Amino acid sequence: MTQKLARRMDRLQASPVRDILAVASQPGMISFAGGLPATDALPSIDSVSIDSASLQYGASEGDQALRKYVANDLQQRGFDVDENRVLIVSGSQQGIDLVAKLIVEQGTCVAVESPTYLAALQMFTLFGAQYVPFSIDALQSEVPGVTLEDVLDSELLYINPTFQNPSSTVYTSTQRRTLATLCDDEEILLFEDDPYRELYYESCDRQPVCSMLRRTSWVYQSSFSKTIAPGLRLGYLTCSANLYPHLLKLKQAADLHSNRISQSLLLTLVNDPLDSLRLQEARASYRAKRDSFNSLLHQYFDSLATWEVPVGGLFYWLTLKTPVPIDTRLLLQDAIDAGVAFMPGEPFFIDSTQAKGHLRLNFSHAPVELFEQGLAQLSSIIAIACQQAADSCQKP
Amino acid sequence: MTQKLARRMDRLQASPVRDILAVASQPGMISFAGGLPATDALPSIDSVSIDSASLQYGASEGDQALRKYVANDLQQRGFDVDENRVLIVSGSQQGIDLVAKLIVEQGTCVAVESPTYLAALQMFTLFGAQYVPFSIDALQSEVPGVTLEDVLDSELLYINPTFQNPSSTVYTSTQRRTLATLCDDEEILLFEDDPYRELYYESCDRQPVCSMLRRTSWVYQSSFSKTIAPGLRLGYLTCSANLYPHLLKLKQAADLHSNRISQSLLLTLVNDPLDSLRLQEARASYRAKRDSFNSLLHQYFDSLATWEVPVGGLFYWLTLKTPVPIDTRLLLQDAIDAGVAFMPGEPFFIDSTQAKGHLRLNFSHAPVELFEQGLAQLSSIIAIACQQAADSCQKP
Repeated sequence: MTQKLARRMDRLQASPVRDILAVASQPGMISFAGGLPATDALPSIDSVSIDSASLQYGASEGDQALRKYVANDLQQRGFDVDENRVLIVSGSQQGIDLVAKLIVEQGTCVAVESPTYLAALQMFTLFGAQYVPFSIDALQSEVPGVTLEDVLDSELLYINPTFQNPSSTVYTSTQRRTLATLCDDEEILLFEDDPYRELYYESCDRQPVCSMLRRTSWVYQSSFSKTIAPGLRLGYLTCSANLYPHLLKLKQAADLHSNRISQSLLLTLVNDPLDSLRLQEARASYRAKRDSFNSLLHQYFDSLATWEVPVGGLFYWLTLKTPVPIDTRLLLQDAIDAGVAFMPGEPFFIDSTQAKGHLRLNFSHAPVELFEQGLAQLSSIIAIACQQAADSCQKP
Repeated sequence: MTQKLARRMDRLQASPVRDILAVASQPGMISFAGGLPATDALPSIDSVSIDSASLQYGASEGDQALRKYVANDLQQRGFDVDENRVLIVSGSQQGIDLVAKLIVEQGTCVAVESPTYLAALQMFTLFGAQYVPFSIDALQSEVPGVTLEDVLDSELLYINPTFQNPSSTVYTSTQRRTLATLCDDEEILLFEDDPYRELYYESCDRQPVCSMLRRTSWVYQSSFSKTIAPGLRLGYLTCSANLYPHLLKLKQAADLHSNRISQSLLLTLVNDPLDSLRLQEARASYRAKRDSFNSLLHQYFDSLATWEVPVGGLFYWLTLKTPVPIDTRLLLQDAIDAGVAFMPGEPFFIDSTQAKGHLRLNFSHAPVELFEQGLAQLSSIIAIACQQAADSCQKP
């Protein structure tokens, strides 16, 4: 039988991430597809005991000791907040769900970078968002297709200014200040997603734009998935005082509260001096992997694509050098058949037809000794596709 | 500044549960308010090691071994499903969020029992539900205010047929069969919430109504919060084949996947023969607490209220014997000042003015040796309120 569903369901696309990750986790696959930490960067959790308090229901805000730890961290990043303005969420994907419920309904204008994080697009779209493209470069000069007036009229501006997923771009200090001033002057609600901030490999400005705001409403979130472990499913958000009671009620309605066992394990980990050493080692290891990956990209992709070396985060963002853009989704099956997975660029764009032949390649998860095999395979498949594209252009 | 929010936020009420639980957890408070397991009924989790797989991202459906365990359990309850029709959720509150997103939009007719679980009302209301009252008794005889035709026109029927929260009622075998036939014949989407099923103290029919359906769409969910531990934040749902892909996408969009550490701990627990012993002991302990509570209710409340002894679940549902119904929310502060917390009945009704002076009293969590002190205090406060109500009725 056909069941009548809410109209929003017509807009819900399966995330390609889900399908690709299922394939990427098959034995023998070399995966550059996901954004997974390296297995050896994960903490060891041995011989732990779970206290009975962690087994009971808890506060929707999250456990107080963990919120205090987060508040202290946020203060060091320039936020004037205490633990009563911190909400522990079940991964930062849940933060996107809560903010979407708070703001987005049928026809709400949401300004986003394009490309942007695809699962944010998925959730905003579910609730009926209409998109306006935003580019930080448009604050200083004109960018084709981006009109700042449209951004000023949006109900929400979602950004990922530090090591963006997928492009790994990072805003300069000037860009951060200019954007904060614009948001304050124009009363734009800023939603800043900052999960990659601790994965920096060069020095750069990482001050949250939200920490510079003085008047407008804002939500800032980050995650423990990239620095500690995704399986904990824990992230946190803070926000302007006017929004906190609403987000807290939405959190309660969504799942009562986040997992207390994870919260307890996390608090133990972050208070362990060895754990900050683990993060330093992960950063060093990821930096080395990034550099190895770059050398191999030069070896195999110099004639095929352009890219920037990421200053932080987990991804290379390649732009193919074809006379006309290739839909990289069409290359995926061949790549998987050859034992290598990547993430096509199209789903990261408001309108996938705006994509210009991009691939997102993760360098943190696959073992470094498999990089060359994976990139060699991938370059062969792409070389064929590029050649076919060139040939078809030359035909009358 | 005033931030423009989505219109649905006008409908989001803070759940009174949240506020009351915060008070109820204060030191020294005797709490009959929440639905918490007894601390000594919780499992002991000592010296566990968390494998690295549990620290990584996982499947949105949940871990396969846990889904297999759940599917086997569901088959024993009469469901014709395997693990590919099981979705692990972050507590059954999340199941309500997912089903609400799937079905409920502005003006959607949702049939619910009244009283019913208040956090389901909270979530359906957020998405714009209009309510139609449903009573299982209306299937066999007329019930004032309940018209079966309205129920047949609803998009969704939400029920809690086994040890309902708050009233602890349980459907008879005939009622279950009659309702299943009605839903099949009229193609009503049935959403059955079954978190208390394992907490039975007398024999009674507990077969899920959804397991008897043959044609219509349905969602069935249960929880590990009441039988293992709420802090795990794990529940599960199964549904008709047509709905599963939608609910899976919604789950992914909501929080990617549920906590893997909890899933791993849970699987170890449910496969431990000692754990089924723990559940048997919890059941025996709750039965004894239920009986002690009943004796004390007779001692202190015989002149003040009526109630049924619950066959299962965690609650007594009292109806005060006043000439006009008392708003029990107005008694709460006095009770808290006297060191005892309870749950007022009003928030469980579609329209709180329909409440007839009810209190929901939990008997599982407070230590049995504090029952008398708590109930004596509460009866004094209620006796005064009843006397005031009687006096005001006698005034000209």
